[in-house]
Parts: sequence; structure tokens; C-alpha cells
Amino acid sequence: MIVVLRPRTPEEQIQEVVGAVKRFGYEPRLIRGVELTVIACVGDERRHHTLETLTVMPQVERVMPVQKRFKLVSREFHKADSSVRVDGVTVDAHSFHVIAGPCSVESERQVLETARMVKAAGATMLRGGAFKPRTSPYDFSGLGKEGLRILKKAKQETGLPIVTEVMSPDDVAAVSEVADMIQIGTRNAQNYALLHAAGRSHKPVFLKRGMASTVEEWLNAAEHIAAEGNARIILCERGIRTFETATRFTLDLNGVAVAKKETHLPVFVDPSHGVGRADLITPLARAAVAVGCDGLMIEVHPDPKRALSDGAQQLVPGSFEEMMAALRPFAELMGRRIG
Amino acid sequence: MIVVLRPRTPEEQIQEVVGAVKRFGYEPRLIRGVELTVIACVGDERRHHTLETLTVMPQVERVMPVQKRFKLVSREFHKADSSVRVDGVTVDAHSFHVIAGPCSVESERQVLETARMVKAAGATMLRGGAFKPRTSPYDFSGLGKEGLRILKKAKQETGLPIVTEVMSPDDVAAVSEVADMIQIGTRNAQNYALLHAAGRSHKPVFLKRGMASTVEEWLNAAEHIAAEGNARIILCERGIRTFETATRFTLDLNGVAVAKKETHLPVFVDPSHGVGRADLITPLARAAVAVGCDGLMIEVHPDPKRALSDGAQQLVPGSFEEMMAALRPFAELMGRRIG
Amino acid sequence: MIVVLRPRTPEEQIQEVVGAVKRFGYEPRLIRGVELTVIACVGDERRHHTLETLTVMPQVERVMPVQKRFKLVSREFHKADSSVRVDGVTVDAHSFHVIAGPCSVESERQVLETARMVKAAGATMLRGGAFKPRTSPYDFSGLGKEGLRILKKAKQETGLPIVTEVMSPDDVAAVSEVADMIQIGTRNAQNYALLHAAGRSHKPVFLKRGMASTVEEWLNAAEHIAAEGNARIILCERGIRTFETATRFTLDLNGVAVAKKETHLPVFVDPSHGVGRADLITPLARAAVAVGCDGLMIEVHPDPKRALSDGAQQLVPGSFEEMMAALRPFAELMGRRIG
Amino acid sequence: MIVVLRPRTPEEQIQEVVGAVKRFGYEPRLIRGVELTVIACVGDERRHHTLETLTVMPQVERVMPVQKRFKLVSREFHKADSSVRVDGVTVDAHSFHVIAGPCSVESERQVLETARMVKAAGATMLRGGAFKPRTSPYDFSGLGKEGLRILKKAKQETGLPIVTEVMSPDDVAAVSEVADMIQIGTRNAQNYALLHAAGRSHKPVFLKRGMASTVEEWLNAAEHIAAEGNARIILCERGIRTFETATRFTLDLNGVAVAKKETHLPVFVDPSHGVGRADLITPLARAAVAVGCDGLMIEVHPDPKRALSDGAQQLVPGSFEEMMAALRPFAELMGRRIG
Repeated sequence: MIVVLRPRTPEEQIQEVVGAVKRFGYEPRLIRGVELTVIACVGDERRHHTLETLTVMPQVERVMPVQKRFKLVSREFHKADSSVRVDGVTVDAHSFHVIAGPCSVESERQVLETARMVKAAGATMLRGGAFKPRTSPYDFSGLGKEGLRILKKAKQETGLPIVTEVMSPDDVAAVSEVADMIQIGTRNAQNYALLHAAGRSHKPVFLKRGMASTVEEWLNAAEHIAAEGNARIILCERGIRTFETATRFTLDLNGVAVAKKETHLPVFVDPSHGVGRADLITPLARAAVAVGCDGLMIEVHPDPKRALSDGAQQLVPGSFEEMMAALRPFAELMGRRIG
Repeated sequence: MIVVLRPRTPEEQIQEVVGAVKRFGYEPRLIRGVELTVIACVGDERRHHTLETLTVMPQVERVMPVQKRFKLVSREFHKADSSVRVDGVTVDAHSFHVIAGPCSVESERQVLETARMVKAAGATMLRGGAFKPRTSPYDFSGLGKEGLRILKKAKQETGLPIVTEVMSPDDVAAVSEVADMIQIGTRNAQNYALLHAAGRSHKPVFLKRGMASTVEEWLNAAEHIAAEGNARIILCERGIRTFETATRFTLDLNGVAVAKKETHLPVFVDPSHGVGRADLITPLARAAVAVGCDGLMIEVHPDPKRALSDGAQQLVPGSFEEMMAALRPFAELMGRRIG
Repeated sequence: MIVVLRPRTPEEQIQEVVGAVKRFGYEPRLIRGVELTVIACVGDERRHHTLETLTVMPQVERVMPVQKRFKLVSREFHKADSSVRVDGVTVDAHSFHVIAGPCSVESERQVLETARMVKAAGATMLRGGAFKPRTSPYDFSGLGKEGLRILKKAKQETGLPIVTEVMSPDDVAAVSEVADMIQIGTRNAQNYALLHAAGRSHKPVFLKRGMASTVEEWLNAAEHIAAEGNARIILCERGIRTFETATRFTLDLNGVAVAKKETHLPVFVDPSHGVGRADLITPLARAAVAVGCDGLMIEVHPDPKRALSDGAQQLVPGSFEEMMAALRPFAELMGRRIG
Repeated sequence: MIVVLRPRTPEEQIQEVVGAVKRFGYEPRLIRGVELTVIACVGDERRHHTLETLTVMPQVERVMPVQKRFKLVSREFHKADSSVRVDGVTVDAHSFHVIAGPCSVESERQVLETARMVKAAGATMLRGGAFKPRTSPYDFSGLGKEGLRILKKAKQETGLPIVTEVMSPDDVAAVSEVADMIQIGTRNAQNYALLHAAGRSHKPVFLKRGMASTVEEWLNAAEHIAAEGNARIILCERGIRTFETATRFTLDLNGVAVAKKETHLPVFVDPSHGVGRADLITPLARAAVAVGCDGLMIEVHPDPKRALSDGAQQLVPGSFEEMMAALRPFAELMGRRIG
């Protein structure tokens, strides 16, 4: 940590801060500059108490951490790209996997039809929401356990591993019976009770970025899971909240590039939520491939205009096939094989 | 809902949209303008399916909802200001209540000392975190049940009702045994499993605004609680996430003024998190009183520089007393009595 | 500046950075920590080249400036609150001035009527746009020189000093003939050619904050004016751009409190633009007084629904009078006299 | 425009709004819904006064425009992609042009060396700032006219057309003598005096998006230029301001995809400013190609760590060559030829 003192702080008050730094277990190194005095505090910031509390002392102008707070998920801890196995599918640096399926599980017919089609087009995992977080309590909130049953059947028929969202620690066990990978959504990205429950499960976790999370907070959320003993995590960028209203969210491909530098975990992109408009999904999916992500999550529905949730951003089967065909050569340029 | 069609849409395609609107249970009214054709769709938007899915039709440019999605918490549903009783304390349009206490419960001595002091200064409820959401898994995450025991003791000694955060549906019962009001934090503001559990409890709920929630989403979060049968809700603005880094968050007093128009529920303000710097809490607390909020939540710690969390934004007892003295005449100007 | 090196940087590469730091005129102090090595670089950051360019060296993780870049406008340079004289009116720590008038100058009758009314209600300066920045080229862009003539006449009749916006360096001379204070709008807050022209004029400058400017950038914009020799500057917060859409902008009263700490210049607030809705202006104006600002700018129009710009946020005369009456006791509590 | 009235508005007050709508030249169509009454107002929104001022009437809940305000730059006005000729270079739907060069012109040697290198690597235009907008007045603000002389010489030697920024209407003539395309920077994106001066010049204009501009405001800025008679405009996305701090700005490739739909003008991307870190420019440049943009602007410096501005984001010549090689196959997949 670096503690910056206010200009012209008297010696006695400098020593008061030095004392406090020592009390917190850091070794202070005083640097007297032209206008400012700073104290470099040597010590492991993850193990010791944060010094940010020192800003309550009037002579302290600012405290700046220099160390990252996440460890297990960092590239420094594990240099090579991690691979994550989801049932029979291996996500790694050479593959490119597309998880596809409807926003919500609405009926057996809808899910089976979609599952067969997305598999034929090259998707390797099936998504579908049985438990749906909805802004309004009057919106369709998913079929729940009946939805899980339908997903199970779709797996039996197609062999596609299932990715589905869990919204409560209590549901982790039930969802894990069907899901090959459990998804934590953007609204629960800092729901620590849920992150810990996922960390204690034996399933891979698909962790969406919080719509207001910095990349650092996103990686810290993953660290919460990893610190509970589960390192099988795939990260997913799905758009952040900004002032722009032309698209539902702003897909942050900068954040994907940063995350690929900072962590060894695979990083996926969800352009369906990231743009929120079916007509822009293919260009953003291409961009996501080109920025270097490890896979995509795409919403597909046999008849989006009758969808019970997020119809505006779900692709029809034909468009999904075209998108997959369009992505293949881009993935190959990136040294990856789709599917 | 208003459906805006693209310029020069052929008649046949207009009728296709008209048909879809009818199928969803709305009555379409076609308006042919100079450049654009729009379809006004008459029907209760809360009861019917959203038409936003129609944007997947290429001839549809935009769909604009006109109705708000929350009902029970709206001023239209209940014109007068609600009052919420928290143990012996009544929050209403004539009172002004300050909930004060440490960020985290750290020890019996710390909590009791703080409780006595804030009560003497005019606070009417005690806050203190037993379960703490923390960005990093290596930070202090609260004393848990031991923290609840300490809070209970503080109530026995001072009589102050207890407000404390709950982070998981599983903890609602245990927390409710001690808490007079359960708090839902900003990171769980769209954790619907938790909102529903709070809605099924018999305790008042102190609902912080999500740091990336619009006012409308915040009120919809309250509607999730109310729709489960619990209308004893107090809203709390605590700062939103913006590009500004001089303060930890941006306290949105605009949002407070909007919320007071839109809902009958009491609206509190938490300047401690909203600014994140002890030296700016008093001016923002004054501003919050003057904008017309119904109460404040303030973090107070006997020795903030040794605090185990958020030390930078906790007031020392002396500063809290000064703040309370400073607020009194402002509250009176607003026709309210502190405490 | 603090230069943070990557973990496990070899000695040779550390010395390479040390050499670069010296070349830029700073004195490097090496601090070898547990995991990281940092170099504290002693030297006046305003006089020397920024070291941020060193991040192109692969062994450099981050460079953190510790010094603020503005000087003349800082509290460290000038401890006491500055007073700024605008024609006969003195803005200082004991007064509270309200600048009022229409968004745009539309007609002589409109301006004179408004001017008389706002003066009677306690406003001490008249605003009115003759040159209007407008998002669309097809919107009303002001009466230009005819607008200036009308403002001049309003001053002759009422004695109120005139505050009006200038949009181009070329117009500074003409506007200065009529204006007692020239205004720089939010869209020109980083238009350096205009800031420099204002800095070379002999008029006080009313500098709106850029809607995407941090407080630090806002103060740096003021420094651009001051560095040209004109220190008669009044800052004005007018709302920043965030994700919230319930109000036109988010009024940042945190930023006002920060600015009052950082600078000796007077800080005003413009709630008309900051909320963009007439019905919320009074509560936010009260909050602005209570946070400790030095004055307000308020838009008033005799018949807002016929206004040629920003009608939604202009107060009718009756509402303005009520607002002024409501503000008086709040200003008095703050130790200030309105008008 | 759609005017939404408050629930249960009495008939008399509805008619008052109907009258106001007529007075503004629109034809009102009343639609009485289940809970709400809305008035669809038929008329050309670009030609008539905005009805947003009607929100000052207490019975009006909201006014929603349905028509876009830009026309000349819209795809509806001109369906096919525009081509823009910059000296000998033609920007169109089949080409992919890279504008490269240093952030600031620092010396003749620096510019000539860079110009030769970027040309050899495939760049077709040379950028370099002679007039530099700088946050602090104490930063290097460019060589001014001497900078223009150097750029002219670089063109004589390499034949590369020159793109350079203009910051003041007064400088448009002098800059136009050297520049083949004049650039308007992000801080001047709503500097209407400058946009109009550019619109009256006979040079193509390279218009950066404002860091806080919506896509709609960006296109309206272009409309300001076009409405003055100059339709030779290239748009450039360069990152928007968000809460994320890991990168300098957030490159908004969603916005690029939206802009390509809405306008016929070419859309470039500037990943150098958009990410602000040299090590992430190539992945984001690839993503920009893949999303479907028409070209790139890239900062290149022979020795970035000695650069007088923005060193952290300038590529060294070797990295630029590698990036160009990496981009070629992506551009080909998009049906475009680099250079």
C-alpha cells in the first residue's frame, strides 16, 4: 500500500501514521518528496488489514493499494490457460465452444426442437433457464423443477451437456442433478452466499460478470468460488451498464482482453444479452471471437416473437446456423476449432 | 405499448404486426403518420405478455412500454405516505429517523459503546453487520451468529431496534430472531430468491438500491417483496456507480426525489456508502434531509482507523454528535422531528 | 509518481526502469516488497514529464500519479474562499446568489417580463441564452446578436448583471460587450480554445462541469482559464451522465462537496439541467443549498410549454417565487444571505 | 411524438393537451387505454417544435419522440454505403484503411521515421497532432504551426494523406492547407461552432465520437456538419466513459454495429484511445475489423516511453507491423482489402 500524506504535514503527525502502519503489520518506508510525503508500506496486502481506514486521519490524503486481491484465479498463480471439462466437452485454448438454447425453458417441444437444431449447427452445450431472474414479479419466472426435467430429457436425446442458472443456495443441489455446469447470473454476481454454495458443489460454474462489476470485482467473485475449493470456473462477459441506450447493455470486449491477461480461466462472451437485439448478434459474436475469447453463449428460440422472455434478443434457428457458419473461419484464424 | 414500424413498411407487413399484437391480447390502434406508422396497443401491460419480442420482426423499429410495471408500491395504488413500524419506532412523514452503528459487528464492547453513544446523540435504531458481503474472500466477513448475539445484547441494554443485513434466504429465520428490520444490501438488490424470502418473513425490510439499478428497477425489487405479502418496506438510496472516482459512489439525490413521487414507501439515504469518505458525510446528510428523505443510515465506529471494514467512511462518535446537531434544524424546516 | 513493477522482475530490468525514471528528471527510491517492487519517484509532477509512458515497458505493471495537476485553483495554493465580483454583485462565502432567467432569449417581452419577476423574487443575476448549443441542427439555436441586444436592454431596465453563454472564441469579444459574466457550457467544458479565450478576456467566467468530466478534470478546465491570467471563475455543477434515465442527468452533489474541499473558487449548482424536470427542481435546489454550494442557476420562463428550448425544466414565475421563499431559511442555516 | 397522460386525467384536462398539440402543428389522435390515455401526435418531428415541453403540464406523464432527428446522414436518406475520398485514397465498403502515426508531432525526425514505417506496413494515411487538447494546461499542447509544417513534409516524402486535429474554428483554414482530412476530437464532439466551421470547409472530416455521446448524439453531431453542406464525413468510435477503470475508456463495438445500421457514412475505430494500453490494441483492432468497421486509427511512435503525450497507448513500429499482418486475414474474411 502507498499512503499519501497531505502537503506540509508536521513531523509528529507523519510519525503518527508511521505508527499506525506498523500496528497493522506493514513495514513503513518514508519517502519525502518535493511537495508530498508518501509512505510505502511493505507487506502482503491479502494477508493484512487494508490501510484504507487510515484515510480517516486528517493528515492522510489517499491510500493506494498496489497488489491485486485475487490469487487462485490469477495468471501469476497459474501461468497456463486452464481447461475446464463439462461432462464430455473440454473447454481449452484450442477449442471454441458455443453454448446455445432458449432464454427460458417454455415447453418440452420448444427445448427439444432447439436442442437438435443447435447441435446440428455446431453448438456443444445446451442452455435454457428453468429458474429465471425477472425485473418485475409479474413476468414469467421459469418452469422451475419441470424445466429441469425438460432439460434432462433434452440431454438424453441429444447428448448435449446442460448449462442452467441457479438463483439460490438452496437450489444448488437440485439444479446440480441435471446441470453439467451451473450458471450464476449477472444479478447474482456478488451474491456471496450463492458463490460459496457454487464453490462447494462439484460442478463447473459459469460465472456471468455483474453488469456493474469492474473486471477486478468479477475476478474477485471467481476467487470466492475458487477459495471454497472449486476451480472449474468459466467466466462470461455479458455487457455492462453505461449511459448508452441504443443497445440494452454495452458489451465490454476491452474487459475480455483484460481478463484474458489477468486470469488463467476460460472467458466466454454472451452477445445476446450484451447487445439485446437479434440483428446485431452476429457482428458482435465475430468481434468476440476475434478479441480472443474461448467461447460464446447464444440465445436461440424457434419462434422468438412468442418467447416468454427476452424475445428481442433470441435468434431464430436459421440465423443461428448462418452465424455459426460465419464464425467458423474467424475461429480458425484464432487457432481454434468450433465444436 | 407503442409499436413503431420502419418507414415505408408495406401494408401486408403492417397487418402481420397487427395480427401479432392481437394474438398477445392487446387491442391495436393504427396511426399512420407522415413518415412513420405506429400501433398503439391497448391492454394492461402488467397482465399481458410484453410486446418487446416483436422487435424480432424486421418491420418493427421499436417497442415502447407506456405503463410502469410496479403496482403495490406505487403512489397510484396508495396515495398517502406509508408508515412503517419497526419495533417501537414509527417511520412516517412527520418523523426523521437516523439508523446508526458500526459497519461490522467486531466485539461486544465496540457495539455497546457505539449503541449507547448513538442513542444519546438521537439515533433511534442500531445498525451493525453480522454477515458482511465482501468483494474479496480474504476480507473480514463478519462474526455471523456471534454477531447476532452481540446485537441482541445491545438491544437489551439500549432498547434500540436492530437493523442488520441478511445475505441468504437460509439466514432469514435466524436473523429475524434478533433483527427488528432485516436489511438487503446493494449487491443483493436483484437477488430475487432473497427478496422473496424477505417478502415471506414478518419483519420490515430495509431495501438498499442496487448500485446499478434504475429507480424503476429499485421499485420493482420492492414490488417483489410486496407481492409476497410484506408491504413493510423502507427504501434506501446508497450511491450509484458512475465514472466519477473522487467519491466511492455517486449519491443520487435526484433518485430520492423521483422515488418520493413514484412510491408511498419511506425513502432513506445512506451517505456513508454514498460518498465513502468520513469528511463529506455531514454535508451530504444535510442535502439528503433537504431533498425530502425520511431518514438516514450512518456508519459510526469508536475507532474507525482500526475498523475491520470500511473504516474510511465511518464517523467517530464526536463527529456523529456534531452531525446530528447540525441536522436538527434542517429536519425541522422540513416539518420533521429527529428521533 | 509510484511505478509498480510486475512480480519477479529480474534485477537488470528493474535497473532499466530506474534509469528511465532518472532520465525524466525524477529521483527514484526503490522499495522491495514481499511480492512486488515499487519505485517511488520524487519530483514535481506538474513540471516534469508524466511517467505513465513507462507502462509500455513490459516489466511495468502500473504507474500511479500522487500529485494533483491543478495548482492556481487549488485550496493549497489559496486557502480562503475566493470572492468573485460580477458587476455590482459579490459572490462570496457569506452570500447566496441565484442566477435566473429563460433557457433561451426568445423575445424582448419574454426576457423583460422574466427579468422583472426574478428580480422581485430575489434573483441577483439574469441568465438567458443568445447562442444555444443544440443536439440537432434543426432545433432553435438562439437569436444571436439580437439576443444580446435584448439582454442589454433587460439590464438597463432591471440593473441585473447578465450571464450568457459563449460558444466560440470568435464570439468572446461581442458577448463580453453585453455579458457581465460569460458562461462556458457543459459541451464546451474541454474546448480548450474557448477556455483560453475566456482566460484572456476580462470578464468573470461561469464554468459548467462537463457532463462526463471528473471533478479533477473540471478543476483542470478551470486551471486552463486561470493559467491564462483570469482567476475570476465560478464553477457550476449541472448533472453528470449516468445509466439512470428517470432524470435527464444525475446531479452530483458529492462532486460539489469534493470541489468545495479542493478549490477556493465559488461552486454553484444548476438543478434545472441536473434533473431536467420542473417538478423536482425545488427539492434538489434545497439539497444544493444544504450541501454547501455558493449559489444556484435556475431556468425560468413565463410560459414553459411554449418555450423554444428545454421547456420541460423551466419554472413558471409562481413556482420560482415559491422556490425562493422555500430556500431562504435553508440558506440562513448555512450562514448565508440570499440576494 | 407520443404523449402519455397520467392515470385518471379528467376529460377537460385531456382536451387542454389536445389543444396544445394542435397549436404546435401536430395532428392529435387520442387513444384511451385500460389505465392510461395516450395521444399519438402526427407530424414531422424534425420540422415542428418538440412536444417535450408539454411535460410541464401536470396531467402529462411523459412525451416520447418516435422519429430520429438526423436525416442527411441516415440510411433512410441514402441507402448505400457512402464512399469518402481523402486525397488519393478512397474509403468505401470494399477497402479497409488504417490511419497511423504518432499521437503528437514532436520532431521532424520522429514524424518522418514513423511515416515511412507505417506506410511500409500498409497504412494509407498519416495521423499526427499539431494542436493537442490536454487535460492539464501544463502538459505539452503540440507544436502548432511548426507541427503542420512537419506533417506537410512527411506527405511530400511519403505521399500519405494527412489527418490532423483542429481545435478552433479559427484554425480550420490553416489546418486545411496541410490536412487532407481534418479531425474533430472527442472533447469537441459537441462543439457546434467547430462542427459548423468544418461543415463549411471543403475537406473531409474525421469525427470522433464524444466520450459521453450516445450513438444518436454522435450522428446528430455529423448532421451538424452535413447540414452546412459537407457530407464527406468519416465517423470514429474511440471509447466511451464508463465505471470501468482497467482500461482508459470502454471501446463500444455495439455502438459501431448500431452506427453501421443507422448511417451510410464510413465508421472507423480508434482502439489506441479506446483501450489506452499498448498490449491490448491488437486484440481490440481484430475485434473492430470483425464487427464490420471500415478502418482504424492507430497511434504509433518510434519510442513511446519518451513520447510527449499518451505514451502508454502508442505502438512501437515492430508491434504495428505485427498488428497489420495479423489484421489482413480478418479484413479479407470481411470482404475487404487493407490498404
